[in-house]
Amino acid sequence: MKLAICGLGKMGMNLVLNLLDHDHDVVAYDIDEALIAEAERKGATGAASLKEVVDHLPERKIIWMMVPAGDITESLVNDITPLLSAGDILMDGGNALYKDTMRRYERLKESGIHYVDVGTSGGMEGAREGACTMVGGDREVVAEIEKVFQDISVDKGYLYTGKSGSGHFLKMVHNGVEYGMMQAIGEGFDILEKSAFDYDHEEVARVWNNGSVIRSWLMELMEYAFADDPKLKEIKGIVHASGEGKWTVETAMELEAAAPVIALSLMMRNRSLESDTFSGKVVASLRNQFGGHSVELND
Amino acid sequence: MKLAICGLGKMGMNLVLNLLDHDHDVVAYDIDEALIAEAERKGATGAASLKEVVDHLPERKIIWMMVPAGDITESLVNDITPLLSAGDILMDGGNALYKDTMRRYERLKESGIHYVDVGTSGGMEGAREGACTMVGGDREVVAEIEKVFQDISVDKGYLYTGKSGSGHFLKMVHNGVEYGMMQAIGEGFDILEKSAFDYDHEEVARVWNNGSVIRSWLMELMEYAFADDPKLKEIKGIVHASGEGKWTVETAMELEAAAPVIALSLMMRNRSLESDTFSGKVVASLRNQFGGHSVELND
Repeated sequence: MKLAICGLGKMGMNLVLNLLDHDHDVVAYDIDEALIAEAERKGATGAASLKEVVDHLPERKIIWMMVPAGDITESLVNDITPLLSAGDILMDGGNALYKDTMRRYERLKESGIHYVDVGTSGGMEGAREGACTMVGGDREVVAEIEKVFQDISVDKGYLYTGKSGSGHFLKMVHNGVEYGMMQAIGEGFDILEKSAFDYDHEEVARVWNNGSVIRSWLMELMEYAFADDPKLKEIKGIVHASGEGKWTVETAMELEAAAPVIALSLMMRNRSLESDTFSGKVVASLRNQFGGHSVELND
Repeated sequence: MKLAICGLGKMGMNLVLNLLDHDHDVVAYDIDEALIAEAERKGATGAASLKEVVDHLPERKIIWMMVPAGDITESLVNDITPLLSAGDILMDGGNALYKDTMRRYERLKESGIHYVDVGTSGGMEGAREGACTMVGGDREVVAEIEKVFQDISVDKGYLYTGKSGSGHFLKMVHNGVEYGMMQAIGEGFDILEKSAFDYDHEEVARVWNNGSVIRSWLMELMEYAFADDPKLKEIKGIVHASGEGKWTVETAMELEAAAPVIALSLMMRNRSLESDTFSGKVVASLRNQFGGHSVELND
């Protein structure tokens, strides 16, 4: 199949390579010319502008956006829509909020352009070697391009999830679950590290990955991380969040669902961004006020 | 190697079969005679009493207890110790609190009896086909019987964890992490179930198991559970806890470690045991008191 990838970052470039491996004909576009050149060297057809993207595609255009969610996705959709016609397919492989996706779907529908949301998991390795794709949109439209998802995903790693937004919603919840699993793993190793026993974290991760109930890809990644840095001395315990965990919690609140562990995992990330907290100062000062308990002063 | 298994429940019986598969010579004991007969049919030597257990073993006795933690383990240790001599090895494959294990280790040391803690994960399937074993105790003692653990574990699924107690401590923290991972998975599917989309949970679990970041044995188990009962209609959402999660949280508090997600996972299990809560009544009545918000009355 001939299609274009817009956005040649870590995920997009790996996706291009993955598609080329499966004999798809790829038009590659990015705002960074060096990345276009790199994609060309690998076998893609470079496009220096969105105009060139559509010029390189056949009459029925299939375009896969692989750019950060939010303003960048919004701009790209706005810029590319005027170049498309009824029947064309525009896919968003980023982590857009599903509500934005549904809004874009409705807007593009007015021009007969099909909008498809492709929740993508598996990280860079997944994009390159075989991803997990959760795809929402009109069933008959997705059916037409299903082979692409099957090709770039691992076996059984592609699912048509239902109407527009359902792919991004599922990817969002996936990331919420991921936040909780990661925080639980973090807490476990923290207790081991503080304990009176002398564990080798890499060996712990390895034994937990072989036959235990908590064996998982995340635990495998910890095996590699501890192999590189046994006490993780080189990095700080600061954990940023890119939106999907927060949206999962917001969604849980909208649905009046109890999701305290996912919420707390997000807030522990937020806590990690601060070296000191105002809430801590408040509690320390209250404790001092009523009980005369000592407080620690700033230098 | 010739050794005895005391306790032929789901884990113990599968362990007997696993040991027999690896050409070990197994003496099998339980308080339930039917289980002893079953083990005999499978190739073990039955023992109808602890006295018979030791009579069937060679001069240097190796005994593996596979019984529930707490009073039952304590009784068994107390009953078996007088039948053992200096140099014998007594192993606890249950989920004992590591502090109890360390206490028993010290007490048996006075008689020269070696006490070894074997944290065991992988469930019934693991005990039968290949477990994950985390073994604490004196290094030279464990080294002598290491082949047994290597045989009954999956490849790389055995780890000597250090001094007495470290095996059970590691298994305890493993279970704490498990609580958090399970709760995160539960919350994720709860949000999907309450959402406006129409997901097939089995298909979701399957796609998440193939290429996604959260692929894991727990998610595979959800695939099987949803295959049997797509909406889990046959069971209640009541989740009991068997001690290790609670001990993990108690340990985190002793170590002044922050483990909010594991703690909350435990408390969500506690919450699930109650169909209504007194805390809920208190909050509803306060809300009514200050704001006149309506309360729901009992029938």
